[in-house]
Amino acid sequence: MSSSDIFIGETIGTAILILLGGGVCAAVTLKASKARNAGWLAIAFGWGFAVLTAVYTSAPLSGAHLNPAVTLAIAIKDGEWGDVPVYWAGQFLGAMIGAALVWVAYYGQFHAHLTDREIVGGPGAQDTKSVEAREAAAGPVLGIFSTGPEIRIAAQNLATEIIGTVVLVLAILTQGLNGEGKGLGTLGALITALVVVSIGLSLGGPTGYAINPARDLGPRIVHALLPLPNKGGSDWGYAWIPVVGPLIGGAIAAGIYNVAFA
Amino acid sequence: MSSSDIFIGETIGTAILILLGGGVCAAVTLKASKARNAGWLAIAFGWGFAVLTAVYTSAPLSGAHLNPAVTLAIAIKDGEWGDVPVYWAGQFLGAMIGAALVWVAYYGQFHAHLTDREIVGGPGAQDTKSVEAREAAAGPVLGIFSTGPEIRIAAQNLATEIIGTVVLVLAILTQGLNGEGKGLGTLGALITALVVVSIGLSLGGPTGYAINPARDLGPRIVHALLPLPNKGGSDWGYAWIPVVGPLIGGAIAAGIYNVAFA
Amino acid sequence: MSSSDIFIGETIGTAILILLGGGVCAAVTLKASKARNAGWLAIAFGWGFAVLTAVYTSAPLSGAHLNPAVTLAIAIKDGEWGDVPVYWAGQFLGAMIGAALVWVAYYGQFHAHLTDREIVGGPGAQDTKSVEAREAAAGPVLGIFSTGPEIRIAAQNLATEIIGTVVLVLAILTQGLNGEGKGLGTLGALITALVVVSIGLSLGGPTGYAINPARDLGPRIVHALLPLPNKGGSDWGYAWIPVVGPLIGGAIAAGIYNVAFA
Amino acid sequence: MSSSDIFIGETIGTAILILLGGGVCAAVTLKASKARNAGWLAIAFGWGFAVLTAVYTSAPLSGAHLNPAVTLAIAIKDGEWGDVPVYWAGQFLGAMIGAALVWVAYYGQFHAHLTDREIVGGPGAQDTKSVEAREAAAGPVLGIFSTGPEIRIAAQNLATEIIGTVVLVLAILTQGLNGEGKGLGTLGALITALVVVSIGLSLGGPTGYAINPARDLGPRIVHALLPLPNKGGSDWGYAWIPVVGPLIGGAIAAGIYNVAFA
Repeated sequence: MSSSDIFIGETIGTAILILLGGGVCAAVTLKASKARNAGWLAIAFGWGFAVLTAVYTSAPLSGAHLNPAVTLAIAIKDGEWGDVPVYWAGQFLGAMIGAALVWVAYYGQFHAHLTDREIVGGPGAQDTKSVEAREAAAGPVLGIFSTGPEIRIAAQNLATEIIGTVVLVLAILTQGLNGEGKGLGTLGALITALVVVSIGLSLGGPTGYAINPARDLGPRIVHALLPLPNKGGSDWGYAWIPVVGPLIGGAIAAGIYNVAFA
Repeated sequence: MSSSDIFIGETIGTAILILLGGGVCAAVTLKASKARNAGWLAIAFGWGFAVLTAVYTSAPLSGAHLNPAVTLAIAIKDGEWGDVPVYWAGQFLGAMIGAALVWVAYYGQFHAHLTDREIVGGPGAQDTKSVEAREAAAGPVLGIFSTGPEIRIAAQNLATEIIGTVVLVLAILTQGLNGEGKGLGTLGALITALVVVSIGLSLGGPTGYAINPARDLGPRIVHALLPLPNKGGSDWGYAWIPVVGPLIGGAIAAGIYNVAFA
Repeated sequence: MSSSDIFIGETIGTAILILLGGGVCAAVTLKASKARNAGWLAIAFGWGFAVLTAVYTSAPLSGAHLNPAVTLAIAIKDGEWGDVPVYWAGQFLGAMIGAALVWVAYYGQFHAHLTDREIVGGPGAQDTKSVEAREAAAGPVLGIFSTGPEIRIAAQNLATEIIGTVVLVLAILTQGLNGEGKGLGTLGALITALVVVSIGLSLGGPTGYAINPARDLGPRIVHALLPLPNKGGSDWGYAWIPVVGPLIGGAIAAGIYNVAFA
Repeated sequence: MSSSDIFIGETIGTAILILLGGGVCAAVTLKASKARNAGWLAIAFGWGFAVLTAVYTSAPLSGAHLNPAVTLAIAIKDGEWGDVPVYWAGQFLGAMIGAALVWVAYYGQFHAHLTDREIVGGPGAQDTKSVEAREAAAGPVLGIFSTGPEIRIAAQNLATEIIGTVVLVLAILTQGLNGEGKGLGTLGALITALVVVSIGLSLGGPTGYAINPARDLGPRIVHALLPLPNKGGSDWGYAWIPVVGPLIGGAIAAGIYNVAFA
């Protein structure tokens, strides 16, 4: 694969991943969305099939890593580091494009959600709601862009992200051993997607399962940049965990693979 | 493939698609349906597996486009336009047959839903409900036939349909690159179906994801023609968006494919 | 395939089908079940994956028809009728075994549900509930065994069963055209299962989608025979529709196949 | 396969199985989990895709039994018993590791759930809640580790576990007859996973479907050992049923296979 194919493939693939992944969060969260309150099963399947669509589309160009932790693990496994910067650049660019496209697709919904929220103090009290009250209430839209913990314990949050990423990357690395010989593009794309559904259902409860540094940091930057009214802060204090945790998890999975499976 | 195989295949396939796709909307919407209020996840899986069933059944005859935007994109990609009218004719005819079959399968449910609705003004007040009040209340059954926006902003609605269709068509066009060599009939039908589930979960919130001109316009015509009591209007003011948006999206996807993947 | 393999395969396969299909209805319906009120999506996936499990297990022995309407359609398509009685005998026997196994697996739940129902007249009034009131309330457990319409219109109910079976059987008959060459046992089992999920989600609302004479009549006989307290009647007046409808649907599907696909 | 590959594969695979399977129970049960109250469908899909992930990852090393009842059945089928102790040892070790990892991933959630429960006696009454009241209320967390019956009838509970395991093991044993020739690693892993979803939806209602002695006993021991506050008892009186039932079920399935399918 040429560097330009890798860059284009990872950019397109990660843009689709975040468009569909952020999209399901918007669909379930925002006012005036037909899918509002569709629940956690919709979130888990939505992200899983986002992976399926993104991997299937971009695999012919770049092999569809779409995740800096996957790229890191494959580099460790194979001992080849030359393409890592190209993969990572495409992944972060794609994630930012995808997050911006979620904003386009749900433009009216974002506006309705952020400017016409539940009235504090009952009907008729809307005029008295201060800007501070609006910002405090606007928290949920950050969850459309990036992850956050239910309980803020850095050690646990990091551990949960590490564990989830080990499961993901180990399943991807063993793919080549399962006799398919066709890479991620066919059945492997489906298996990987359902592994992501599994991680979402089983390990998503505490932190919202970033398990991918580009998936979390790229959209968080877009959240900070977009002209959304009353959007609140971007929670930069937490931002390092969904970057560092998945990278550690990817490295551990590569280590397990090299010791036990290679 | 002969023209008659294409026409018959697209007619049968799109009829199954709309029978099952419109059917899940009827199942979730109408009174006296066992699936009433089954929620958005049922809608998204229902439409996705409708695609699976329809593609799998009709692929041996026509290759199972079942969507004028897919036919347009393949024509642009291959530079061959001769069969486009036959594909489009079968797709629109099939969509209208499918919508009529939904009416047959849910005949009693339509009647119960449209003539015995929630009583305005509390129990005992039914006799006083005017025809106008019934028509105002009868809105939901149009949603069994065609799509409509939650927030009516033409530019956003068009953009959402374009984005959804680009995702769908790009995934279909890259299918040939994924080493299957068997066309849509086997694993490709399943992958395409799950891509449609993904688009429904992630991008369906604002407009209900037509992403297919025949899927929306054919059943809208049937809604206008059917002798349903109190059915209300067919919202013709919106009807151009789910036709034009998907065609633009298909053309953009073909352009991306020819530049980046070919 | 020998006659004994066909008979044993169809018996085992249909027993698994009805054990799992009736099982999900019991799981969602009965008191003291962990899955109570899991909803229509659970029903639709439960029946679909019941088909997957049953087809996958029995396909090596009998080809896994598991449905008299499928056997009829294949006989019409191929013009070979010799094995039809063996298939049908195994299917009905298996369906009855499966329904009895549901009763075994949910023994305590049936008892709790049928003898300790909602108290008519509020707390403390239980002693005054007559046998007639219990029988009137006990309706739901028939739905664990066989299907029933939400609105009792024979013509519509028959049409809905015919339409659903045409979709099912057409998808099964075209399987051989999709280049798999391995029969129902592998990917075809999965596709067929998801077609059944689709029919459940989209066409199950009015009648509960028997689409299989053995699936409905066999368990209805078991319902009539089992020593369940307060079980109510077996609704024999409706019993012909889920037998005749699917057989007509299978014959129509075979006709469409022979005209359009062969 | 070497004994060390078998032991490592079964340990890794069963650890992933229980991490993800116990994880979904934690996600749906515990306070401060994003997936709380996601319902039975989430449980059934969560355990099914846990099987998919675990089987797919460990199949290249050990063939991915991950269940002493499966190992027993294969030993009976093939008449080869030499590797059974290694399989069983890896399965129980892995199950205990997996259960401990659930505790790590949900550390803060366990703490919040067990120490800050619903207040008995209304707001302000928290201080008066005795240790006994807390223990009585803390029951649900045992369900994250091991199974328990809704209605405690030993004969029925045993029968339900036997029936579920027969279905599971028969589907696994017939896999080799379905012309895949690639073992559990590819499509077979997906089929097996969906069979497990099916058993969960259809036969999980009465006992919570252990259908695997290691899945139940390993985590039960971990529940007894972990320093969880107010965790209550480990229900040792029930512990033999999800061990004995699945082993009987596996033996019966092997018998059916040898008589009807071999």
